[in-house]
Amino acid sequence: MIKVGIVGGSGYTGVELLRLLSRHPEVQLTAITSRGDAGTRVDEMFPSLRGVVDLAFTAPDQSNLNGCDVVFFATPHGVAMSHAASLLASGVRIIDLAADFRLKDTAEFEKWYKMPHSCPEILAEAVYGLAEINREAIKKARVIGLPGCYPTSVQLGFAPLLKQGKPLVNEAGLIADCKSGVSGAGRRASVGSLFAESSDNFHAYGVKGHRHLPEIVQGLKAITGNTREIGLTFVPHLTPMIRGIHSTLYATIVPGCESIDYQKLYEDFYQDDPFVDVMPAGAHPETRSVRSSNYLRIAVHRPMDGNILVILVVEDNLVKGAAGQGVQCMNLMFGFEETMGLKVVPVLP
Amino acid sequence: MIKVGIVGGSGYTGVELLRLLSRHPEVQLTAITSRGDAGTRVDEMFPSLRGVVDLAFTAPDQSNLNGCDVVFFATPHGVAMSHAASLLASGVRIIDLAADFRLKDTAEFEKWYKMPHSCPEILAEAVYGLAEINREAIKKARVIGLPGCYPTSVQLGFAPLLKQGKPLVNEAGLIADCKSGVSGAGRRASVGSLFAESSDNFHAYGVKGHRHLPEIVQGLKAITGNTREIGLTFVPHLTPMIRGIHSTLYATIVPGCESIDYQKLYEDFYQDDPFVDVMPAGAHPETRSVRSSNYLRIAVHRPMDGNILVILVVEDNLVKGAAGQGVQCMNLMFGFEETMGLKVVPVLP
Amino acid sequence: MIKVGIVGGSGYTGVELLRLLSRHPEVQLTAITSRGDAGTRVDEMFPSLRGVVDLAFTAPDQSNLNGCDVVFFATPHGVAMSHAASLLASGVRIIDLAADFRLKDTAEFEKWYKMPHSCPEILAEAVYGLAEINREAIKKARVIGLPGCYPTSVQLGFAPLLKQGKPLVNEAGLIADCKSGVSGAGRRASVGSLFAESSDNFHAYGVKGHRHLPEIVQGLKAITGNTREIGLTFVPHLTPMIRGIHSTLYATIVPGCESIDYQKLYEDFYQDDPFVDVMPAGAHPETRSVRSSNYLRIAVHRPMDGNILVILVVEDNLVKGAAGQGVQCMNLMFGFEETMGLKVVPVLP
Amino acid sequence: MIKVGIVGGSGYTGVELLRLLSRHPEVQLTAITSRGDAGTRVDEMFPSLRGVVDLAFTAPDQSNLNGCDVVFFATPHGVAMSHAASLLASGVRIIDLAADFRLKDTAEFEKWYKMPHSCPEILAEAVYGLAEINREAIKKARVIGLPGCYPTSVQLGFAPLLKQGKPLVNEAGLIADCKSGVSGAGRRASVGSLFAESSDNFHAYGVKGHRHLPEIVQGLKAITGNTREIGLTFVPHLTPMIRGIHSTLYATIVPGCESIDYQKLYEDFYQDDPFVDVMPAGAHPETRSVRSSNYLRIAVHRPMDGNILVILVVEDNLVKGAAGQGVQCMNLMFGFEETMGLKVVPVLP
Repeated sequence: MIKVGIVGGSGYTGVELLRLLSRHPEVQLTAITSRGDAGTRVDEMFPSLRGVVDLAFTAPDQSNLNGCDVVFFATPHGVAMSHAASLLASGVRIIDLAADFRLKDTAEFEKWYKMPHSCPEILAEAVYGLAEINREAIKKARVIGLPGCYPTSVQLGFAPLLKQGKPLVNEAGLIADCKSGVSGAGRRASVGSLFAESSDNFHAYGVKGHRHLPEIVQGLKAITGNTREIGLTFVPHLTPMIRGIHSTLYATIVPGCESIDYQKLYEDFYQDDPFVDVMPAGAHPETRSVRSSNYLRIAVHRPMDGNILVILVVEDNLVKGAAGQGVQCMNLMFGFEETMGLKVVPVLP
Repeated sequence: MIKVGIVGGSGYTGVELLRLLSRHPEVQLTAITSRGDAGTRVDEMFPSLRGVVDLAFTAPDQSNLNGCDVVFFATPHGVAMSHAASLLASGVRIIDLAADFRLKDTAEFEKWYKMPHSCPEILAEAVYGLAEINREAIKKARVIGLPGCYPTSVQLGFAPLLKQGKPLVNEAGLIADCKSGVSGAGRRASVGSLFAESSDNFHAYGVKGHRHLPEIVQGLKAITGNTREIGLTFVPHLTPMIRGIHSTLYATIVPGCESIDYQKLYEDFYQDDPFVDVMPAGAHPETRSVRSSNYLRIAVHRPMDGNILVILVVEDNLVKGAAGQGVQCMNLMFGFEETMGLKVVPVLP
Repeated sequence: MIKVGIVGGSGYTGVELLRLLSRHPEVQLTAITSRGDAGTRVDEMFPSLRGVVDLAFTAPDQSNLNGCDVVFFATPHGVAMSHAASLLASGVRIIDLAADFRLKDTAEFEKWYKMPHSCPEILAEAVYGLAEINREAIKKARVIGLPGCYPTSVQLGFAPLLKQGKPLVNEAGLIADCKSGVSGAGRRASVGSLFAESSDNFHAYGVKGHRHLPEIVQGLKAITGNTREIGLTFVPHLTPMIRGIHSTLYATIVPGCESIDYQKLYEDFYQDDPFVDVMPAGAHPETRSVRSSNYLRIAVHRPMDGNILVILVVEDNLVKGAAGQGVQCMNLMFGFEETMGLKVVPVLP
Repeated sequence: MIKVGIVGGSGYTGVELLRLLSRHPEVQLTAITSRGDAGTRVDEMFPSLRGVVDLAFTAPDQSNLNGCDVVFFATPHGVAMSHAASLLASGVRIIDLAADFRLKDTAEFEKWYKMPHSCPEILAEAVYGLAEINREAIKKARVIGLPGCYPTSVQLGFAPLLKQGKPLVNEAGLIADCKSGVSGAGRRASVGSLFAESSDNFHAYGVKGHRHLPEIVQGLKAITGNTREIGLTFVPHLTPMIRGIHSTLYATIVPGCESIDYQKLYEDFYQDDPFVDVMPAGAHPETRSVRSSNYLRIAVHRPMDGNILVILVVEDNLVKGAAGQGVQCMNLMFGFEETMGLKVVPVLP
């Protein structure tokens, strides 16, 4: 049994952590902070948790976070790094769902997030929490920077192609056409996320440049063992659903690699990963097939048997793209079974 | 560990039974039948169950249903009654999610469902599976007729007012204005349930008369101990959401009963029911607060402190209104804890 | 050709006014104000108006509103009354889509809107803009207080029953169970109106008391010729659609009035009203059947031939419930054909 | 005033033709056929047309189609070609919204549509109804094969790049990642289009090969003047909205063409087309910005100033992608103004 704290429990990743952690057999929820909602009972804000979570939000500085074994940060960018040194000094491990510990290059961080990085030395030791790629490092980590929702799907979708001794596809011309549900924008009041704005509507955004682009490129490059450069065109879109990301990935097979069995390549690559499901050839995974669960499903296509690979990837952005992935990392860090507390069956329909 | 069969596993209540039963610690899923889909793997039709349910659909007559301890019927009306005698003879208990064992009066059944009732003697012993009202009878039942989705919410919403020695409200003038998500229409292809028909749209249906009306009236009358007549106006509506029922109930307080504390009346009535949550005074329960769970939440209002009570009730029509309620009954019938396998936290957002 | 100004053009009723007025053959759009967005081109905020509206938002005090023939206020409550005296002095007529000129009793206004009424003398002359009830008065009005979206549907739904020399129904026990799309909450950022909050969800709100309640009661009473008192229970609900209101109205027939042909009563009552459509007996009107149009459809039911009348009413809350009704009033005020510019065919699907 | 017939008026493109043609000043609706619904009033099936269309569906052979000036076919594939010879012999012009007159190569038609082509000689004279590309030919045509919904957006999105003397982009490696609302699947009952299946869900389909692929390739090749081959990867997706297509197009600039001003190229190309709107640089068009209208909006992006062009295209699949484009062609064929009857302002929100 470990003591777990959550900083910033009033957003969507916060309530999702609560849903998962409240049923985790080795977790004792100890503190849930929210600066704006201190004093409010958690189940008053989220009646779905009535009878499940018997705590109130507390102010961060009134909460005994230092007494926890691990603290999750489900906060805006910049919060985790301000608490990190103190928590580490108390022996508390950190899992940040925001971007503070994702980009290894502080200049890149500052360019995209418009704030200085306050603890580059902690950033240096932080592990990128993509379990399928970094499992062993995560087990020993004190600080986890959890991947963003888009980056999770794009990296796991391309990984089997890139984690090879030589390029199988044109790595300078990768394309990721990604579609996200509206919960990805968080639980902040904003006109663009209103029901009457985003329902019965579809559009791209951030085509000029999106914060997840440098993170994905960093991750894909790391998957090549940092031996090769990556060129990626990343176009995110908003789709009128609550949860779910569907990434459609395009890669051009390089001459000489046409005869590879890519279906088998993917199946072999992920055979030991409990949350990645390579679907049968010809499948079209649906986002709802992973709704509310930590699974990510992949289908490998090669239209008209040509030289373009089309990889379809679905995940629940709030689970495998955020809270669930965090619990998966926590399990690895504390020696629990990787799937503990995460065997929720997807809710369909 | 009991052996469980499901007849008609390819609809929404079927997949929902699979979601719940596959994680139930005392259940071994033994057979899942579907006449039209025999031979198809369950997880091919419902990829959400990949890695969860390792069975294929079988034809009903090829399935060893007689070897089960209990069989669920998630079938069209009329199927369960054709199998009931044979199963009972083999010692198999029956939980029917359709209407075969709901209406005690076969003439009423035949009027509303346009088919003769083929086993009135079994109907006579069947127990109406509303655990909060019939818990003790369910424990001993061999055959359960599970309540419909609307009837569950309306009966549990009115029950505390009616289960009284004398009328507290005008029982001849009850009104139930109910709103259901589209999954209530089932997984059959029909124009009216198409996305392009039912999205961004709202309408009433069946105002002239709906099959759930006689069931609700029978149930409400039973709650009075069959001592008083009930007059109910029931108006169902279709609302563009997948799951969920919201029933708004209206009752007029009779003279002399104005000073009763109705909030307390409801709280006391349901204090020992694990799945009924009487919310604090003034609350407006949301359907999503019970999404994917077996909970039903109730709020009691008395606008402007007048003599009209407004009772708000929410449930997930596929869980408390169908599959979950079935599992709840099964737990009672086999001596398991009533909540076993049903502690799923609602998925929000 | 008249000169028209719009104050507060950046909300949903504003863009809807622009959609309708831009195609009105007798209207010249002269000024569109928005305090927060002055300088922004209208079609930059609403690309749907590219090529349609060639204006930029201006600051209210920089706009020549006094040179208009009529000014619409699509603003928060309290704005119109602060401009009214000055505009009237310049001979400009006023159509207010907010609540400033709805409630005749300033004490009621102040109780529900939490602000003093600044021009009771103008309020006294203002006409309530429900054309089907007040057509002649509207033709001569200088100031129109347009009905709210819910009040429009509830009043027109009950009117044929109430505009009678003696009560046909129990006027002390009327019930209006109303369901609105999310655009009714306006284009303001608020957590409750986020897609991820209001999609796949349904709930009531304001059961304790809603601002539209006193307005409806005032209107219903006026329909009786202010000869009788009205008792109304009003329960609004939020439903996951963009546009549309569906009101389900309940009234109990009083003894002696059972033999009236209510279908005919309604058809006769509205036979000369171009925007009110009494549907054939047995119909269930859908909100989408009026989407984007100024029509309001009504169906009259009497379930099981009992003594409860169930009246179903649908409208587009942004058109007949707001902007369209405003244009309808404008047409009457300036002697245009009542339907001018309003013959938009509903968009279905 | 011309006489217009519609064959197959009971689907979504049918009701959309009715919405547009009923308000067209030069059109007299003469016959609306529907084999299955003969005798039913049009406004009984589509109450949105009450007071707008005063006709009943008739059986095709009972309808005086030969007396029309033009007949629209809003039917399944194969119907138009069975009527074409007879109608042409009577001097009736034909606009087919299905695929009978799209693919010039009958072998391709038979491969993708699984039926023989019954009138290749009429096919030979048929004109592909993409007004922006074939305006002059349409003016003189007797038979129009209207483009499919996806093909309209993809061809108009790529046209300015391809209608050039030499390749500007790698024409062998074009990618079209397209997202469609559910109305694209038509008004036929099918499980996959149910609300409970397609709401809150997203998935690709037909990745292996889709009927619109050969049509798009034929069209793109024609745009090059049939001088160059086209290689296209086309991935359609289903998105939970009623109407709208968003196509995200990718093309790689060939060496030597990096300095072209692509924004200007697009603006110049479409400067005389009333329904194509090239948006300002940096824009992200939304599908709702064209909802219910015949407009198609395009935005040109070049992320990170690299060599990949990303073209965003939105249209209403039922209007510019079907019925509206048909009316546009009709206007050209009969010498009316191209925009007549099509100046509907998009409905937003």
